[in-house]
Amino acid sequence: MLEETIRVNFYDTDALKHVSNTAIVRWFEGARDPIFRYFTPDLDVENWPLIVASYKVDLLAQTFLGDVTIKTGISRIGNSSFTVFQEVWQNGKRCAKGETALVHFNYQNHKSEPIPSSVREKLEALIVEGD
Amino acid sequence: MLEETIRVNFYDTDALKHVSNTAIVRWFEGARDPIFRYFTPDLDVENWPLIVASYKVDLLAQTFLGDVTIKTGISRIGNSSFTVFQEVWQNGKRCAKGETALVHFNYQNHKSEPIPSSVREKLEALIVEGD
Amino acid sequence: MLEETIRVNFYDTDALKHVSNTAIVRWFEGARDPIFRYFTPDLDVENWPLIVASYKVDLLAQTFLGDVTIKTGISRIGNSSFTVFQEVWQNGKRCAKGETALVHFNYQNHKSEPIPSSVREKLEALIVEGD
Amino acid sequence: MLEETIRVNFYDTDALKHVSNTAIVRWFEGARDPIFRYFTPDLDVENWPLIVASYKVDLLAQTFLGDVTIKTGISRIGNSSFTVFQEVWQNGKRCAKGETALVHFNYQNHKSEPIPSSVREKLEALIVEGD
Repeated sequence: MLEETIRVNFYDTDALKHVSNTAIVRWFEGARDPIFRYFTPDLDVENWPLIVASYKVDLLAQTFLGDVTIKTGISRIGNSSFTVFQEVWQNGKRCAKGETALVHFNYQNHKSEPIPSSVREKLEALIVEGD
Repeated sequence: MLEETIRVNFYDTDALKHVSNTAIVRWFEGARDPIFRYFTPDLDVENWPLIVASYKVDLLAQTFLGDVTIKTGISRIGNSSFTVFQEVWQNGKRCAKGETALVHFNYQNHKSEPIPSSVREKLEALIVEGD
Repeated sequence: MLEETIRVNFYDTDALKHVSNTAIVRWFEGARDPIFRYFTPDLDVENWPLIVASYKVDLLAQTFLGDVTIKTGISRIGNSSFTVFQEVWQNGKRCAKGETALVHFNYQNHKSEPIPSSVREKLEALIVEGD
Repeated sequence: MLEETIRVNFYDTDALKHVSNTAIVRWFEGARDPIFRYFTPDLDVENWPLIVASYKVDLLAQTFLGDVTIKTGISRIGNSSFTVFQEVWQNGKRCAKGETALVHFNYQNHKSEPIPSSVREKLEALIVEGD
């Protein structure tokens, strides 16, 4: 899986002195950056090729100020859509996991498009079992 | 279902000129406020009685600047946990739906606790079929 | 001044159990919505006419979960720019104040443009002394 | 000055396809992490020693998806308060600068406290001219 270690920022916490549940989807979106670049190496927002269809997150343990490692793999590849599997780790504990379904999408005609084979190969290299 | 109409704020949008997928969980958390008050009428953060166990969101249509209506009901009530079912509507279209599982939780001893019967009655009054 | 009362959302708080300093600029941006509409009644993001040049915020007292009232006026009108003066009130106490300088801006040619006289009149109706 | 390079996340952008003005204060708060640790090496939220008194940000150029470097120094040290000076750089251009005034603060008795001399020495090592 892809891995990145990021700082938990103070604004990621809430009044319960732990990380807000709303922060996890931000972290996951951020950590999908390498996958975005498979589709658009220059992150061209004028011709953005992806749209989020759904996501789910399981909060397995509280996360606190400090560092977290986000792990990112692919759990499913369809014709025009695929699913990203991601985890949040802190101090050796898996604190959250989630899946996000993305569609290769044309914003001009509002239609999904097949995933190009060159991109598919890169996604396949990240295949994980999920959970 | 509970309903509230809120403004889409400019910071809720992203470079695709639509609402960021990360905004939906913020809106849903905000719209759970009346349910938080069933458990803690004064929103007492020193004795907060709930923790989020999981959430999932389906993005059914793009959402844009303007107003949205958030609808909130209860789709499941267990012994110590329950599931909130929520929807985002804009211009007569359902743009997103989601479910969030919350646990009646004691942050001092890190244990779940049964939902009090007086709260259970209020939750039952909001039961919806889900989808 | 324009006034709107909004809910402090749980995600607006941080681990100090008060509102994060980073939330105030979100609230202020949200409350500028009526002023955005003076320039673009339909909030047309394809031809957005404004850019933020600077802002400053003074945090006068801690803000907590509950409701807040955001007051919005105009403290300065120049040829192509103007300054919005805003306050956060909670339980009769002024908790924050701030000023945001905005420029009437053409994103196509990256140049500022004079404020149209019809808009100027509306801004003038909101003139406040500042502090 | 302290420097850190971070990714602009997609959720940092808004419908103008550039970085939202509201993101800058998040980045600046994040980049103050080493300074927080001067006061509380373990980031102890139970005894947090700082409160934000004010901030101001000048947006000098638009910032876009990609990486940014945040530079952080100290522009003023008082008895119990100090001011952090920060900049956002992207592709060799300074896109934003700002100052944040923080107070060494006791949340139990709601009083400011003198900056300890050991901390003062560390802050002095980061003194910059500002602008």
